[in-house]
Amino acid sequence: MGDGDTEAAHEAIMQATYRALCEHGYADLTMKAIAEETGKSKATLHYYYDTKQDLLVAFLEYLLESFHEKVQLRDDENPAAQLTTILEKLVFGPDDYKEFQTAMLELRSQAPYSDAYRAQLRANNEELTALLAGIIERGIEDGVFQDVDPNRTASYLLSTIDGARTRWIVLDDDDVLTTVNEELQDYLAERVLVDGQEQIE
Amino acid sequence: MGDGDTEAAHEAIMQATYRALCEHGYADLTMKAIAEETGKSKATLHYYYDTKQDLLVAFLEYLLESFHEKVQLRDDENPAAQLTTILEKLVFGPDDYKEFQTAMLELRSQAPYSDAYRAQLRANNEELTALLAGIIERGIEDGVFQDVDPNRTASYLLSTIDGARTRWIVLDDDDVLTTVNEELQDYLAERVLVDGQEQIE
Repeated sequence: MGDGDTEAAHEAIMQATYRALCEHGYADLTMKAIAEETGKSKATLHYYYDTKQDLLVAFLEYLLESFHEKVQLRDDENPAAQLTTILEKLVFGPDDYKEFQTAMLELRSQAPYSDAYRAQLRANNEELTALLAGIIERGIEDGVFQDVDPNRTASYLLSTIDGARTRWIVLDDDDVLTTVNEELQDYLAERVLVDGQEQIE
Repeated sequence: MGDGDTEAAHEAIMQATYRALCEHGYADLTMKAIAEETGKSKATLHYYYDTKQDLLVAFLEYLLESFHEKVQLRDDENPAAQLTTILEKLVFGPDDYKEFQTAMLELRSQAPYSDAYRAQLRANNEELTALLAGIIERGIEDGVFQDVDPNRTASYLLSTIDGARTRWIVLDDDDVLTTVNEELQDYLAERVLVDGQEQIE
């Protein structure tokens, strides 16, 4: 999609997909339901996306772009502050609506059956891992982080956050995000930062 | 189920459910498919379980019991060794067959739509949390663990493991379990054990 009109249509469809996922969940999501949210016809939707799966792959890509826009990192910012901010955003949001996260968990559980979902989820994950590992590398270079393995640490942090969010949805446990975030901050202070908590404050 | 015959039937149905989940996944699992695995009729299956959901709730309970049997803790064992062993079993198994874990992730993603699934998954989680928190408490009493919050630490450990297992399935990432397990062991050494690595060895 290139010109302004097409971009606007893309944005409208992505936002409609978000709302339709919240309302219907993944299993009951139809092209018709998304079309109704856009106010466009189902035929218009199919002009852009052949199948529901194509549309949802585009939606996963859109989520990644939205995340990047929301966590614009400033180069002059302290890597410790950057890491803390980004982890908090990953734990608590940016899309911490339960209905939406419930639908996303369903979609993710279908990745083993869908090459297209899995490929896009892997691409999203690689970008996130690279983003975190990049911050960690810069922190090590600047001497404010300990000499940890950036990729291993990134994978560990993302696993912990993924687990907390999954448990929040599966167990309907509202405390788990706060609990894990507190422990993650302590982990960073002791395992990653050179001078512990002082770096963040 | 009380007498020997009923217990044997229960065990046979649970094992058949395991195999049927591996073979068909969650979405395509039917009572017929499970009956075929047991060699019993579908009517026999319905004699024990009214619905597929009833059967799967019993199966979740069975998984917890199996886990308890596999990780029989000895009271005279070092809490550090106990914790290391149990975390490794949680990361890598006891049921680390991809097909099975794929089906389990689908089932778990349905918990927000099923009070019965969610109630049983919460009960399983409470028992696991209590098991870990109990080991941590004993470690603190024995003076081999630092003065951490047992429940918070247990919730954090379980989140990290849950996330690693979810990413293993969703991203088809075979390295993530090993990577996260290594980092978890380092976390234990630095954040939980009093004398770090020495306790485990």
